[in-house]
Amino acid sequence: MIKVGIVGGTGYTGVELLRLLAGHRDAEVVCITSRGEEGRAVSELYPSLRGHYDLKFTVPDTETLKECDVIFFATPHGVAQAMLPELLGTDLTSGPRVIDLSADYRVRDQNTWEQWYGQPHGCPELIEQAVYGLPELNREKIKSARLIANPGCYPTAVTLGLIPLLEQGLVDDQHLIASAASGASGAGRGAKVDFLLTEIGDSYKAYAAGGHRHLPEIEQVLSDVVAGQSQPRITFVPHLVPMIRGMQASLYAQLTSADAGDLQALFEERYRNEPFVDVLPAGELPQTRSVKTSNMCRLSVLQPQGRDTVVVLSVIDNLTKGASGQAIQCMNIMFGFDEDAGIDGVAVMP
Amino acid sequence: MIKVGIVGGTGYTGVELLRLLAGHRDAEVVCITSRGEEGRAVSELYPSLRGHYDLKFTVPDTETLKECDVIFFATPHGVAQAMLPELLGTDLTSGPRVIDLSADYRVRDQNTWEQWYGQPHGCPELIEQAVYGLPELNREKIKSARLIANPGCYPTAVTLGLIPLLEQGLVDDQHLIASAASGASGAGRGAKVDFLLTEIGDSYKAYAAGGHRHLPEIEQVLSDVVAGQSQPRITFVPHLVPMIRGMQASLYAQLTSADAGDLQALFEERYRNEPFVDVLPAGELPQTRSVKTSNMCRLSVLQPQGRDTVVVLSVIDNLTKGASGQAIQCMNIMFGFDEDAGIDGVAVMP
Amino acid sequence: MIKVGIVGGTGYTGVELLRLLAGHRDAEVVCITSRGEEGRAVSELYPSLRGHYDLKFTVPDTETLKECDVIFFATPHGVAQAMLPELLGTDLTSGPRVIDLSADYRVRDQNTWEQWYGQPHGCPELIEQAVYGLPELNREKIKSARLIANPGCYPTAVTLGLIPLLEQGLVDDQHLIASAASGASGAGRGAKVDFLLTEIGDSYKAYAAGGHRHLPEIEQVLSDVVAGQSQPRITFVPHLVPMIRGMQASLYAQLTSADAGDLQALFEERYRNEPFVDVLPAGELPQTRSVKTSNMCRLSVLQPQGRDTVVVLSVIDNLTKGASGQAIQCMNIMFGFDEDAGIDGVAVMP
Amino acid sequence: MIKVGIVGGTGYTGVELLRLLAGHRDAEVVCITSRGEEGRAVSELYPSLRGHYDLKFTVPDTETLKECDVIFFATPHGVAQAMLPELLGTDLTSGPRVIDLSADYRVRDQNTWEQWYGQPHGCPELIEQAVYGLPELNREKIKSARLIANPGCYPTAVTLGLIPLLEQGLVDDQHLIASAASGASGAGRGAKVDFLLTEIGDSYKAYAAGGHRHLPEIEQVLSDVVAGQSQPRITFVPHLVPMIRGMQASLYAQLTSADAGDLQALFEERYRNEPFVDVLPAGELPQTRSVKTSNMCRLSVLQPQGRDTVVVLSVIDNLTKGASGQAIQCMNIMFGFDEDAGIDGVAVMP
Repeated sequence: MIKVGIVGGTGYTGVELLRLLAGHRDAEVVCITSRGEEGRAVSELYPSLRGHYDLKFTVPDTETLKECDVIFFATPHGVAQAMLPELLGTDLTSGPRVIDLSADYRVRDQNTWEQWYGQPHGCPELIEQAVYGLPELNREKIKSARLIANPGCYPTAVTLGLIPLLEQGLVDDQHLIASAASGASGAGRGAKVDFLLTEIGDSYKAYAAGGHRHLPEIEQVLSDVVAGQSQPRITFVPHLVPMIRGMQASLYAQLTSADAGDLQALFEERYRNEPFVDVLPAGELPQTRSVKTSNMCRLSVLQPQGRDTVVVLSVIDNLTKGASGQAIQCMNIMFGFDEDAGIDGVAVMP
Repeated sequence: MIKVGIVGGTGYTGVELLRLLAGHRDAEVVCITSRGEEGRAVSELYPSLRGHYDLKFTVPDTETLKECDVIFFATPHGVAQAMLPELLGTDLTSGPRVIDLSADYRVRDQNTWEQWYGQPHGCPELIEQAVYGLPELNREKIKSARLIANPGCYPTAVTLGLIPLLEQGLVDDQHLIASAASGASGAGRGAKVDFLLTEIGDSYKAYAAGGHRHLPEIEQVLSDVVAGQSQPRITFVPHLVPMIRGMQASLYAQLTSADAGDLQALFEERYRNEPFVDVLPAGELPQTRSVKTSNMCRLSVLQPQGRDTVVVLSVIDNLTKGASGQAIQCMNIMFGFDEDAGIDGVAVMP
Repeated sequence: MIKVGIVGGTGYTGVELLRLLAGHRDAEVVCITSRGEEGRAVSELYPSLRGHYDLKFTVPDTETLKECDVIFFATPHGVAQAMLPELLGTDLTSGPRVIDLSADYRVRDQNTWEQWYGQPHGCPELIEQAVYGLPELNREKIKSARLIANPGCYPTAVTLGLIPLLEQGLVDDQHLIASAASGASGAGRGAKVDFLLTEIGDSYKAYAAGGHRHLPEIEQVLSDVVAGQSQPRITFVPHLVPMIRGMQASLYAQLTSADAGDLQALFEERYRNEPFVDVLPAGELPQTRSVKTSNMCRLSVLQPQGRDTVVVLSVIDNLTKGASGQAIQCMNIMFGFDEDAGIDGVAVMP
Repeated sequence: MIKVGIVGGTGYTGVELLRLLAGHRDAEVVCITSRGEEGRAVSELYPSLRGHYDLKFTVPDTETLKECDVIFFATPHGVAQAMLPELLGTDLTSGPRVIDLSADYRVRDQNTWEQWYGQPHGCPELIEQAVYGLPELNREKIKSARLIANPGCYPTAVTLGLIPLLEQGLVDDQHLIASAASGASGAGRGAKVDFLLTEIGDSYKAYAAGGHRHLPEIEQVLSDVVAGQSQPRITFVPHLVPMIRGMQASLYAQLTSADAGDLQALFEERYRNEPFVDVLPAGELPQTRSVKTSNMCRLSVLQPQGRDTVVVLSVIDNLTKGASGQAIQCMNIMFGFDEDAGIDGVAVMP
């Protein structure tokens, strides 16, 4: 039984970690921090946790956190950068492993990070130690990683949909299109007018179409997918759906060859051994509720009218495979647990 | 590991049984029936089940069902009445135990049942063998029962809210009021215009205010609560809420004494050892999402303005504690499993 | 064509006034104020208004406002109290008429107001000049009023449902029950975590069950209904529904006589000439969407099981008949316009 | 005051016609037909209409319909084809004008129509008399038309977004992409499991991605836009959003020139005189609620990261500009009324 600490546990990724870890046979949450909610029971903030946890939020404390086997950062960007050096130093070869759910270590180019996040990077020394925690791409590296940069929700859904096509060089990787959509929990639990039910219920809209922070992350990981042999470019337009959880990436790409082969078989083969990627049978299309509360990504690939545009539809739960579930999947890989421990629940339907 | 059969598994209580039983360490679903979907994989109807079940729907078959240790009927009313005699006979002392999620055996008075359900009772011989499966009232009887009449969702929410008051004789039991509300899954998966998203989304309404089938069931169980010493009467008005899961009973009763004592303490004491009833701290009010997907009932009791009307607010997930979760709770009690096996999941929040 | 000013126009009642007044043939909005949004076009805040208004928000200016024929206060409580004396003095017999959509002048007892709103009353001198703007009760007084206290949404729905019963003395007015429900727009446009889609979507809950600010207002107007011959008491529990607009009061009362007579006929007769109260045919129940965006209140009355509890179901759109529509109805009455001018739109369905 | 007949008025486009025409000063609905609801009051089916209409549904009757000035067909496809010849013959030069909201006359190539709709065309003789009722493209033809093929909702949103780019030949018209999304009312009022709130609430999915019936219609009208100088090809993937009304087309196209010029100015200029197309200021993005219940289309055009992919976002209310509102706009043009008569309402927000 490993000891788990959670830094910044009041947000939706924090409570999702708690929900999932309550059913994990090999891990126990021993501390959860929040400066704003110090002393408050987690079950007071989230009554769903009544009877499952006796924990109270505490101010982050170095000694307590150092005794953990793994620390999840469920914090806004900037916090892990600021806290890690004081907490663990910049040599992470001993002490707790760290899984950072924020964007702090996802982008390897410091300048790019600073440009998109509008602030100086707080601890660039750790960048090269970070492993991008997408098991379907980096499982081996994750096993021995000490610092995981847990992928963003959109990058997860988009990348899983494009890996088979890009690895095989089947599409024009300079004009990829990701028309994606997310439920409102992706925006977190902040008090913002723009996310009131009255503002976004019964409505639909694109946002950040001119440039979303997940764009450089997506383009970096797509470059990793092609082993750096090109620098893929993608037009990424996220949309907001009046639902709580769920994310879909609708991906469009131009095939470079008239005969692309059997795309269905290609996708099935690529993900045959992946426990959390499910390629739907030909003709079926995914829906976000089929993965709600689960760590699964479900995919469809199709070539409408037999033309040269391929369409991939990829759904995840943004809080699970798109955040906390994937973080636990990484933890399981790091500690040699069953990869699906704590995250094998059936999606809630209806 | 016991063998579980599910008759009529295409509806929402069927898939909820499958979702919960997938995580039950002592029970395995070995067959699931549907005449309409014979031969179809359950994971085709409910893609959330892909990877969790290999089952196909089959036509109900006596030999297969008889080999089960327990059979759940997740059917419309009338079906269990018709099938039980041909399947198991009317002497249930051997063979599979039966947990009927429908209304067939909830009302003990045959005439009352026939009047409210508008058809002759198909097998009244079994009525006296049926135990009403509300563990908080009938746990001992459930242990040895062979046929469980699993309570309706509204009767569960209403009864749990009134038990402490009625047992202590604190309220006028001739003028109880239950103003209750349910998400749309309570209406099942039938193709009805009245339950289209376009018809009930962004709207709210009362329905069946003149007389809902759960009324005689509620009044019967309230009579059981007072050990038949009176025949309580309740005005029951259900409402439809534009949400998928969740149910609240808002209960109003007149206190018969000026000094009712400490109602908070009364409720806490009554439910101290109940694993699935959670009395909230004084001053907190329940919300349906705090129990969504879980088997918990959360309750508040209060006396607004210190006047002589007591208000109890009771929330459940209509598909879990209000149906399939409670059915599994009964199964656990019947077979001596941990009472929370398979139904100890944390509610999904957000 | 009268000139209309709106003080505090950034909230939902403000934009609803603008929506409705855009179609009013006898009234023109000439100024709209907001300190926080000074200089911003109203169509920037509410793109639905693009092409309908050229107005910009301005800081409230005495000279401009004095030139209006009528001023609507669509402000939080406390603002009208503070602004009216400096703007118009405390003698309102000349100058613009005022329709205050806030709670500032709804409660006539100063102490009660101060107790429930937790602050000293800012201008009690005006209390006695204020007319409670419920046309179905006070139409004659509204005609000559200079200051209208526009009713709260819950008090409107509750009172319209109880008027016929209370006027005829048919029910126990000491144990009335209002189990009411509102869409989220009732909480306004403030940036509050509790009203995020992620927090309240797909959930249902009671709130302020221990005491809501509309309680003293409701009890005051019910006392007016019975001409002060008693002081009715009501248990009022509001609930929050995951929808944007709409409100239902589900009302329960004990009949004082075994033979209450024909309640359907009573209600139809009472409201025969009311343009905005619609008594549904016997057997039909109202739904909030049937009044969405309209100024109509739709009502049903029934006596379940022929017992001695009467149930009244009353629906309104909380932003229209519950706020801005009723304010315009009052304006129409005050200025002798057709009572339905600008508010005769058909409810949006679906 | 012209006389209006509506054939097939029980669906959502029927009630939307009634809602809008209730406020039209020059048109009066004199008959509305439905075989299934014969004799039932429209206000019984749609209580929102109580007090606005006294009409009852009637069986379609030739004499009555012939006395109308205009007949709207708000029917499933196939009905207008079957009824028009018996009703008016195939020479429409006298008698009522016809505005067909169904797909019967939208596709000019009979074979294409029959292939996509899976049935023989019932009256191809009328195809060449039909004018495609998109005012922004065909206003002059509409003026003198006797039979209007009212555009589909998706074709309206997509075409309005692409007209400026295609007319100027700025994009690769062989690889257009329309990733579009609709609220559930687009599917009509049929009793289908797939559109229950429980099935599609809180979820998001693509549908008909392999080929939607609006695809040939879109490609035909895009060809009209370029005056037949090419046959544009588009990948069209519609998505279902858990909301009632609203539609967005997110359009992606490759610019054919490195310097496309000022796209914002291009769009503003193209639509300067269009009463129902609103190009948002640069930097603002549309949202469906800003047009909910209104006949407006709101558009944004942008070039993310200054790359060579142009993005256009186009929102309409699928029942208004996407159906009944546009039909009334056509009627206004045909009869010389103000083009915005009856359809000048402000969108409902919130």
